[in-house]
Amino acid sequence: MRLALAQINTVVGDLDGNRERILRRVDEAREAGADVVLFPELAVTGYPPEDLLLRPGFIRAAARSLSQIAEAARDIVLFVGAPHFDGALYNVCAVCADGEVKAIHRKRLLPNYGVFDEQRYFAPGHDVVLYPVGELLTGLTVCEDMWQPGPAADLAGAGAELIVNLSASPFHVGKDREREEMFAARARDNGCFVALCNAVGGQDELIFDGHSVVLDRKGEVLARAPGFEEALLLVDLDRGGPVAPLVDDLEQMRLALELGLRDYVEKNGFSEVVIGVSGGIDSALTAALAVEALGPERVHCVSMPSRYSSEGTRADARRLAEDLGTPFLELPIDEVVDGYLEALAEPFAGREPDLTEENLQARSRGVLLMALSNKFGWLVVATGNKSELSVGYATLYGDMAGGFALLKDVFKTDVFRLSKYVNERAGRELIPQTIIDRAPSAELREDQLDEDSLPPYPELDRVLEAYVELDRSREELAADGFEPELVERAVAMIDRAEYKRRQAPPGVKLRPKAFGRDRRTPITNKWSG
Amino acid sequence: MRLALAQINTVVGDLDGNRERILRRVDEAREAGADVVLFPELAVTGYPPEDLLLRPGFIRAAARSLSQIAEAARDIVLFVGAPHFDGALYNVCAVCADGEVKAIHRKRLLPNYGVFDEQRYFAPGHDVVLYPVGELLTGLTVCEDMWQPGPAADLAGAGAELIVNLSASPFHVGKDREREEMFAARARDNGCFVALCNAVGGQDELIFDGHSVVLDRKGEVLARAPGFEEALLLVDLDRGGPVAPLVDDLEQMRLALELGLRDYVEKNGFSEVVIGVSGGIDSALTAALAVEALGPERVHCVSMPSRYSSEGTRADARRLAEDLGTPFLELPIDEVVDGYLEALAEPFAGREPDLTEENLQARSRGVLLMALSNKFGWLVVATGNKSELSVGYATLYGDMAGGFALLKDVFKTDVFRLSKYVNERAGRELIPQTIIDRAPSAELREDQLDEDSLPPYPELDRVLEAYVELDRSREELAADGFEPELVERAVAMIDRAEYKRRQAPPGVKLRPKAFGRDRRTPITNKWSG
Repeated sequence: MRLALAQINTVVGDLDGNRERILRRVDEAREAGADVVLFPELAVTGYPPEDLLLRPGFIRAAARSLSQIAEAARDIVLFVGAPHFDGALYNVCAVCADGEVKAIHRKRLLPNYGVFDEQRYFAPGHDVVLYPVGELLTGLTVCEDMWQPGPAADLAGAGAELIVNLSASPFHVGKDREREEMFAARARDNGCFVALCNAVGGQDELIFDGHSVVLDRKGEVLARAPGFEEALLLVDLDRGGPVAPLVDDLEQMRLALELGLRDYVEKNGFSEVVIGVSGGIDSALTAALAVEALGPERVHCVSMPSRYSSEGTRADARRLAEDLGTPFLELPIDEVVDGYLEALAEPFAGREPDLTEENLQARSRGVLLMALSNKFGWLVVATGNKSELSVGYATLYGDMAGGFALLKDVFKTDVFRLSKYVNERAGRELIPQTIIDRAPSAELREDQLDEDSLPPYPELDRVLEAYVELDRSREELAADGFEPELVERAVAMIDRAEYKRRQAPPGVKLRPKAFGRDRRTPITNKWSG
Repeated sequence: MRLALAQINTVVGDLDGNRERILRRVDEAREAGADVVLFPELAVTGYPPEDLLLRPGFIRAAARSLSQIAEAARDIVLFVGAPHFDGALYNVCAVCADGEVKAIHRKRLLPNYGVFDEQRYFAPGHDVVLYPVGELLTGLTVCEDMWQPGPAADLAGAGAELIVNLSASPFHVGKDREREEMFAARARDNGCFVALCNAVGGQDELIFDGHSVVLDRKGEVLARAPGFEEALLLVDLDRGGPVAPLVDDLEQMRLALELGLRDYVEKNGFSEVVIGVSGGIDSALTAALAVEALGPERVHCVSMPSRYSSEGTRADARRLAEDLGTPFLELPIDEVVDGYLEALAEPFAGREPDLTEENLQARSRGVLLMALSNKFGWLVVATGNKSELSVGYATLYGDMAGGFALLKDVFKTDVFRLSKYVNERAGRELIPQTIIDRAPSAELREDQLDEDSLPPYPELDRVLEAYVELDRSREELAADGFEPELVERAVAMIDRAEYKRRQAPPGVKLRPKAFGRDRRTPITNKWSG
C-alpha cells in the first residue's frame, strides 16, 4: 500500500486555484503509483477562511468544488479537507473514490483558543468514521482530533490499523517537534500507523510549516516531508519513505519569516517591497530576509536620514543595500520635518521639544514610504520588533506604518541572534558587523540610546515573555525573581501600548502567543496585574 | 417585594472601582427599601474582559472582590455577575445574602458568534438554579440564557415565579425593542415575572444601552430604566415602577455615539479631543456630537486647508467651530506637502500626479493632528464613515489616523440624516446648512467629487448593507435587483480594502454587523463572491 501526502500551499478563498493545486497532485500521485492521497485540512477553501464560512454562497461554491475534485478520484482514493453543510456546518475529511464522495468524517474537537475560532463556524461531529483502503481499515481525523487521546482511541477500538489526519496546524518555533511527539504517542498508544498531512504556507499572520509525517505502530518515523515548502511525500507502509531532517530554532525562524513574507506579498498580488533602512539592526535584518525571500531586485531599500542620524548609520544603510544588491534611495527628511515645525509654530509656541518632535521624524518617514508605495505599487514592510511593540517604543503611523510587519513576533534579543545567524549562513557580512555591534538607538534626538528609555533588552525580553506570553501576574513575576521595579515599569508600558498594537500591520506569528488574534486584550482596561 | 435593578457603567479590569460602584448602589437600594438588587453580567470585572480572563491572577482577584461584595449583603439579597472558577471557569450569577455567596448559577448558553468569544473563556453550566427571595421562588439566568427558550422553561418547570437575568447585551440600533420583545415572550410563555438588569456604557467598540426592564406574567412592562445612562430602577412587583420611554432610531444613534465617545475618552484617561474639520459633513457631525458628549471647551477643531480647499469649505470649518463654541486652529498644509514633493522629486521624476499626491495631503493632516495629540495630550477623533471605510475611500495614516473613529459604523446616508436631526433638535444650525447641502468631496484635487470615484451614496449604502452586513453573494445581489455593474464595483472595492480596515482605530458599533471583531475577514483572500 502506497500513501501520498500532498503537503500543498493553498490560498484562502481561491476555490478554483486550490482545486487545480489538488488535481495536479492527484495526477502526480497516481503516476507515482499511490493508492491514496491525503490533503490538508480545509484544502478546498484554504485555512482559515474565517467569516467567509458565514457566507452561504461560499459554502455552496466549496461544495461544488469538492464534487469536481471527487470526479477525479478514479483508481485512487482521496482524503480531502473541506467545509460540509448538512443542517449545520462541519469541518470534514471527505473520502473521494470512484468519482464521488464516499464518506465524510466530521471534525470532533473544534479548537476555540489561541488563534482559533472554530466554534464560531462549525458544529462538532460525534461519529467514529472508518474507511477501508485496500486491506487496511483506515480511521479518519482532522487536526485537533489528534491533540486529545479520545478520537484516536475510539478509532483503534473500532479496528483502525491506520489513522489519517488532515491538518492546518499553525506554526510556532518548536511546534514541529511538539506535533510529531503528540502524534507518535497516539500511534504508540493505539498500535496504529499514523499519517499526518499538514498544510504549508503563509496566511496573513499564520504560518503552516508542513512537516507532514508517517509513523509506524511504535511511533517511529517512517517518512517525513520537509518544512516550509510544498511536497508530495510518497510512503510504502512496509518500506517507509524519505525522511527530511528537522532543523534548529534559528533556521525555523528564518524559514518561517521568509515564507510568511513571500506568501503575503505574492498572495496579495504585490511584486516588490520597500523597506526603510536606518542603519539599525531591525531594518537590516528585515531587508536581508526580504532579499532571501524575494530576490534583491524586488526589494527597495530607502534611507531617510535626519540631522540626528550619525555618519555611521547613514553609511551603514547604504552599505547594507550594496551588500544585499538591492536598489537604494536616500531621502533626507529634515526639510519635511522643519515644514511641520513651521506649520505648528504658533500652537507650539513656548513649549519645550518632547516626544512630539521625535514622532514627527518617524511619521515623516512613514509618509515617504507610503508615497513610494502609492506611486510604484511597492508593499511597505515595517521593521519593528516584538520588544518595541510590546512596550510601545514605536511610533504609530511612523515606523509602525506598512502593509506587513515582518519582525512583529521576534524579540530584540532574537533579532541579534538571527542577524548573526544570517551572516554565518551566508559566509559573509550580509548585515554589516558594525550594525550588529552598535548600541540600539532610534536616532530621534542627540545621543539617544534605547537603554535611556527601556530596560536592557535581555532583561526586558524575559519579562515580556513571562507577562505577555505566559500571563504571569505582577505578584508571580516578583516570586519568579524579577526585580519589582523592572516589572512595574514594563507592565505599565505594555498595558498602555495596546491601542498602538490594535492599529499595527499583520506580521508572522513565530511564538506560542503572538499579538493579534492570539492575545485579545481590551484597550479600555484598568487592570494592571 | 421590592426589586432594585442597578444599571451601572463598569470599567473593564477596574475591580476596585467596580466594587465601589456596586456597593454604592447596594446602600442606595437598601435605603430605598429594596429586598433585592440585581447587577449586570460580569459587573465585578466589567464586560467583556476578553483575555484578562485567561490570567489566573485576575480570576483570583475577581473572586476576592466578589467575597468583599458578599460581605455587604446584609438585610438585602444581591444578584451579581462575576467570573467563577471551580475546575473550569464559569460566567455566573452569584447570589449574595447574609454576608456570603449563597448560590451560583453558571451561564448555560455561551455566545460565540458576532462580537462574542465566550466559548474561548468559559465552560457552560448545566444546572437549573433557583433561590427563594421572600415568598418568591426566583430562577437565575445570565444574558444569552434567555435568548433561547430552554433555560426559562426549565426554571418555570422547576417552579420559578420570577426569572432574573443579568445581561451585558451589546447594542445596535433597535436592539432595545428586540431584546424587550424576546424577554416578554419568555415571561408570557412561562407565566413568570421577568427582571432584566442590563449594563450601560461604552467599552472600546461596544455600547451597552441599559433599558433594564421588569415584565409581568403576561409580558407587559412593569418598569423600564432609561437608555444610555446609569439608573437604579425600583419596582414593586404588585405595583410596577417608573417606565422610561423608548426612543427612535436617530435619537438612539445620537445617544450611543455620544456615550461611546465619552466613555472611550474618560475611561482611557483623556480629557480633551482634537478633530480635523474640513468643512465637510463627516467632520462637522463628529465635532457636533463630540461637543454634546464632552462640552465645547474639551473639543479642539483644526482646519487644515490646502490649495484645493474651496473658500466655502474653509469658511464653513471656521463657522462650525464658532457655532459649536470650540477652540479653533487653522494650519495650512501646502508647504508641508510641497516639502514631501521636493523630497520625492527625484524618484517621482517623469511620473504623472495620481492618488499618491492626494494621499500626501491626507497624511500631512494626519501627522499634524497626531503632533497636536502628542504635544497637548488630546485624543485624535477620526471622522470617516462606514461607507468610506467599506470601499476603502479613505487614506491609511491620513484621515483614518486617530485613537477613535466615531462614525466608523455610520453609513454616509445616515450621516446626512443624523446631521439634520442634530440641527432640528438644537433648534439652530449647529452644523451649517451649507455643509449639509454641499456635494461630498475629499478636496484632494481640482473639482473633485466623491461621486467621481464612488456610486451615489444612497445606492452604495444599500449594496454595503446587503454585502457587508447580510453576507449576500454577488449572485444573490443580482437576484435582489441590484445593478450587476454596481455590485461588481462595490464588492471589488470592499474586499480590497480589508487591509486598511485592519489598521483602523476602534469606533462605536451601531449596526447588527460592524467591522472589527464582528466581521472577521482574511486580508489574504481570493474569494470575491
